[in-house]
Amino acid sequence: MDKRTGLPVVGMVGAGQLARMTQQAAIALGQSIRLLADSPDDGAALVTADVEVGDYRSLPDLLRFAEGCDVVTFDHEHVPGEHIRALAAAGVTVLPGADALMFAQNKARMRARMAELAVPGPRWIDLSAAGAAGAAGGPTDSRIDGAEVRAALARFGQDVGWPLVLKAISGGYDGKGVWVVDSVADAEELLQSGPPLLAEEKADIDFEIAALVARSPFGQGAAWPVVETVQQDGICTEVIAPAPRLSAELADRASQLALSIAGQLGVVGVLAVEFFVTRSGGLLVNELAMRPHNSGHWTIEGSRTSQFEQHLRAVLDYPLGSIAQTAPVVVMANVLGGPADTTPALDERVHHLMARWPDVKIHLYGKEFRPGRKVAHVTALGDDLELVRGRARAAADYLSRGDRAGVPDHD
Amino acid sequence: MDKRTGLPVVGMVGAGQLARMTQQAAIALGQSIRLLADSPDDGAALVTADVEVGDYRSLPDLLRFAEGCDVVTFDHEHVPGEHIRALAAAGVTVLPGADALMFAQNKARMRARMAELAVPGPRWIDLSAAGAAGAAGGPTDSRIDGAEVRAALARFGQDVGWPLVLKAISGGYDGKGVWVVDSVADAEELLQSGPPLLAEEKADIDFEIAALVARSPFGQGAAWPVVETVQQDGICTEVIAPAPRLSAELADRASQLALSIAGQLGVVGVLAVEFFVTRSGGLLVNELAMRPHNSGHWTIEGSRTSQFEQHLRAVLDYPLGSIAQTAPVVVMANVLGGPADTTPALDERVHHLMARWPDVKIHLYGKEFRPGRKVAHVTALGDDLELVRGRARAAADYLSRGDRAGVPDHD
Repeated sequence: MDKRTGLPVVGMVGAGQLARMTQQAAIALGQSIRLLADSPDDGAALVTADVEVGDYRSLPDLLRFAEGCDVVTFDHEHVPGEHIRALAAAGVTVLPGADALMFAQNKARMRARMAELAVPGPRWIDLSAAGAAGAAGGPTDSRIDGAEVRAALARFGQDVGWPLVLKAISGGYDGKGVWVVDSVADAEELLQSGPPLLAEEKADIDFEIAALVARSPFGQGAAWPVVETVQQDGICTEVIAPAPRLSAELADRASQLALSIAGQLGVVGVLAVEFFVTRSGGLLVNELAMRPHNSGHWTIEGSRTSQFEQHLRAVLDYPLGSIAQTAPVVVMANVLGGPADTTPALDERVHHLMARWPDVKIHLYGKEFRPGRKVAHVTALGDDLELVRGRARAAADYLSRGDRAGVPDHD
Repeated sequence: MDKRTGLPVVGMVGAGQLARMTQQAAIALGQSIRLLADSPDDGAALVTADVEVGDYRSLPDLLRFAEGCDVVTFDHEHVPGEHIRALAAAGVTVLPGADALMFAQNKARMRARMAELAVPGPRWIDLSAAGAAGAAGGPTDSRIDGAEVRAALARFGQDVGWPLVLKAISGGYDGKGVWVVDSVADAEELLQSGPPLLAEEKADIDFEIAALVARSPFGQGAAWPVVETVQQDGICTEVIAPAPRLSAELADRASQLALSIAGQLGVVGVLAVEFFVTRSGGLLVNELAMRPHNSGHWTIEGSRTSQFEQHLRAVLDYPLGSIAQTAPVVVMANVLGGPADTTPALDERVHHLMARWPDVKIHLYGKEFRPGRKVAHVTALGDDLELVRGRARAAADYLSRGDRAGVPDHD
């Protein structure tokens, strides 16, 4: 409890844009956010008073950071599970807890648990040491037989059809840690020197959606409207709320699945469930994230309660806020860093963007613009999908590249 | 310019709730706010990385603070005008500038300037040394004849009718620095030992409104919908947007007057013009404030661009944002500190409030709850004035006092 305010202190591990936007929500709620940052120049560290610089992989750093925090939560899922358990054992309230977070940290465990819960997903096999050992019924020993893995992959490819998707079991993001392979030979290099992997069938994707929900320790749940996420090269570029091509029935099913997953896994805070919508009209779970998520940035202006406020409410066991949408159409577009020689300078691009689109909301993350890096987002809202989407895309593109070549402006 | 972000640094003198909410807006715009705080425990200092503790009445402190700021602006109007001029002379961009801010700092100068601009206001006389000397045509010397002042006050009372309103020429706020007197004898104590004063006719007030506008150095202006401000004991308790009892014609006139005043005085940033609406349907200017203002807190959720973002855009000479209202009715209610023994504790009151009104937005200022002090506000919005207003009032009252006695809940 912060003695100055009489309100709890929320510790957040990580100081990227998610922590930065959580800080905005925390200010309204009277909270005092404490950050564990990699560097004092991290986006959130630039705008927060109580910052500890340390290593999220170091238990002593985590323990020192957690002192005085009423609850510790996360801007990313990279904190080792054993450290989270050690924090909890030391009496720290960590939310989401290690037992839930595990399924956002380890894709093989997530896939296995989803199968147990009869949640639909792509067919898959675990190619890692543990997985192959398990599949072979042998000892859980890391010196597994490489030939066994290759044989399993070949059989799997024959069953579900090539190409297959290989994924790093841990640590991938924004298209990193995902590879499409046409054969066992094509996978050879990854199998030899890559990270622990799983293989998935390549789903026949029509489009992608995300169901964002929040859950409190008490068990209260709240589901925002399901959104469409538009991807380019594995990176989300646009989020459209509500998902315009999704039937009411599938939207409802996605929300129900996300709420059910949150409950079954004991998630506390925001849970994003990314789904593929297949050409045959099915839903397949793609990924889980247990924190505010890129697919929920639109909620800052587009929902009565933003995902950042809701995450804080949930981890503090406050009642959840209204998830009513504030406009018929809300579009969030990510701003990726453009070429290094982008002109005019950022300050001038901001200036021009504001002049051209006075109703587009800008969110800059305090990060250096590097090619392809998520450095900001913009949000537009209104009644007409094409107009709103065109405006968001054009604004994001201008902020990214300083020109508008190839971007239609429907406004 | 902040080298880490490539964006300008905005310095704000003062670290109260206006700076705290400006910090939220600055985070989105990628700005790095620097605060000059009275104490590291000030509401905004608790949530900002770059805080200098110093005295806003000390020129050396101001100069040190201003170093590296691209622009310096204000959370309050108490910085001495000569210091603002000295900062400008030293090359600091200060907005609003001393020549404009003077009229928010000195009510006698404001009244005189409004009269020159033919802006309607209550009849008034200056009772201060400078004023009385001027009125008597004598030397501008502080050793004026007290009898002269009393005679002027008596004549003024006879002309416009008792009671009269006496106001401190500088430094009043929230009902402080305002007195109603029935006679010269009744004013005697204030005249002898009070601050420099002016006297105003007591207007025949039907209700009060505020016109909030922003102006950029380039001269771009933006006017939010005119609001009704509800006062109790001289403190604003509620703001209703748009003003429900105001005719379209008067609303338009108030907006035009506010934009015209902003232009004529050379204001940069947000300008709030408080008006009395008289029973005979006239408008009288009551006060000016040249900064984000309590009458504009509703814009955080209720307008596409909040007054805090707009103030930043204006002082940075960015184009102004859209001032479209986001719902037909928006009501902001101030939360005043309740009795010292208020139960349950604040954290629990927040909890209950969220459970009861999941759509009401809370803004806590990080300030100690002291009786009558503005410590937070809440905002509700929707379609129905009575419902929205009842919800905002009940929520504010609950947060203030921990019970709801006497507060109708229309929900």
